Amino acid sequence: MLTISYDGSNFKGSQRQGRHRTVQAEVERALTELWSKEAKAAFAGRTDTGVHAAGQVVSSEDFRPDLADWQIKKAINARLPVDVSVESVCRRPAEFNARFDAIWREYRYRVWSGSRHPLLSPQVVQRERWLNVEAMTGAARVLVGSHDFAAFAGNGEGVPWSDRQESPRGTVREVYRSEVAVLEPWWAPRPEGGKLIEIRVVADGFLPKMVRTIAGVLMEVGYGNQQSVWIEKLIAQRDRRLAGETAPAHGLIFWRVGYAGDVLPGTDLDAQVGQ
Amino acid sequence: MLTISYDGSNFKGSQRQGRHRTVQAEVERALTELWSKEAKAAFAGRTDTGVHAAGQVVSSEDFRPDLADWQIKKAINARLPVDVSVESVCRRPAEFNARFDAIWREYRYRVWSGSRHPLLSPQVVQRERWLNVEAMTGAARVLVGSHDFAAFAGNGEGVPWSDRQESPRGTVREVYRSEVAVLEPWWAPRPEGGKLIEIRVVADGFLPKMVRTIAGVLMEVGYGNQQSVWIEKLIAQRDRRLAGETAPAHGLIFWRVGYAGDVLPGTDLDAQVGQ
Repeated sequence: MLTISYDGSNFKGSQRQGRHRTVQAEVERALTELWSKEAKAAFAGRTDTGVHAAGQVVSSEDFRPDLADWQIKKAINARLPVDVSVESVCRRPAEFNARFDAIWREYRYRVWSGSRHPLLSPQVVQRERWLNVEAMTGAARVLVGSHDFAAFAGNGEGVPWSDRQESPRGTVREVYRSEVAVLEPWWAPRPEGGKLIEIRVVADGFLPKMVRTIAGVLMEVGYGNQQSVWIEKLIAQRDRRLAGETAPAHGLIFWRVGYAGDVLPGTDLDAQVGQ
Repeated sequence: MLTISYDGSNFKGSQRQGRHRTVQAEVERALTELWSKEAKAAFAGRTDTGVHAAGQVVSSEDFRPDLADWQIKKAINARLPVDVSVESVCRRPAEFNARFDAIWREYRYRVWSGSRHPLLSPQVVQRERWLNVEAMTGAARVLVGSHDFAAFAGNGEGVPWSDRQESPRGTVREVYRSEVAVLEPWWAPRPEGGKLIEIRVVADGFLPKMVRTIAGVLMEVGYGNQQSVWIEKLIAQRDRRLAGETAPAHGLIFWRVGYAGDVLPGTDLDAQVGQ
């Protein structure tokens, strides 16, 4: 099991796609070199073009029993480009699969509300308009629980994504946590020109573009264009075309993944997860 | 008085230099447009090529009495490129000069000690080697006080910088604060692969390349190559050639400037400053 980070700016998403530059292609190339045999890597979550990851988890069936964990980490990093790296390596039972064994996943979305700031990282979306954090916080709470998120899936173009979904659970997902926070400044001593808002969503799974649609919807509430009750309606109506714009990819970070035995720090929802 | 921020990566320093792209040239161009007459801007601190600023202060003698502070801010930002921006505007008495009226200046230097991480910002220097933060903290303390910092000025090439200095106070500066901190992670959930170290130095003034030389010296102590007593010797010997390498420009941020009446937050040294 590898925990990896990447800056998604120059990747055509995580998942292998022909000859495109993808994270999976880079990781599998590095593992193939190291194991000296064709390697497959299973990713806990699929991320789109431009989306970043701070705690993506990858499993590989092979390993090198002659190397210690830290040596494997070092050897893989030596074979990876600068925009992706392995943070930690640990051994799990042979049947472990990063994707199928994941119990929860967390995404974070970062929006700067204020006049543009040159020292904010490329993983932040900058908006000039003022966002009402309290309104966003209230709206975010509406998403918690098991809901049909059809209105939050896909791009809202052409055939609604819900009609194309064939998985047995359809478009129902359980959101364990949905919060909005204002981050402490690390880029300036006392930023007078704005605030950095972080949307945090933890769920058992996510539909395509779900977090970016949620971010877009919460920003509509933050701007004062909509209210919390609109989100309740969106959930009930199940129509992506009503949910507005998908927020840009570069504000999104696949934050971390939970497996059996892991807890969600800082919440009393821990007990609920995985039931 | 304008408080400005910039990403120094693509600037040949703050100070105007012929046709080079500098922060001063950009700011003066924007002000000249706005005031409709040739504008001069005085900068609180001079920063080298590649050095950033989070709270640089700039004064301009002219202004537009017909515009409110927020309108001036907006109008200047509309005339500045993406890597420099005005954070706040405030009116000071006509005789105010950002450079000569500054009582203290603060710089911060950021070093990541650990395996490389793709989501760390471009304002961080990444080093694979382990750094001992406790040793660095002890060494940083040695710098506090009024000392002759000749050994920390310039590049250490050719004629020692101390022999070229003609200012009446020579190479003596008073350091009010010199600290080493480990920053809370904003780039990853629980970075196992390293720690982000920040060197914070506050002084009445700085000699050329002084903070980068200090950063280089503290890293030598952090690596275990030297001990605190070496810094005492460097101060006494006044020879830049003994102080080792100047740390890279891109880890340095000109953090903030103090004027009469401002306090240094979070310290009991406040009372000493400016005496």
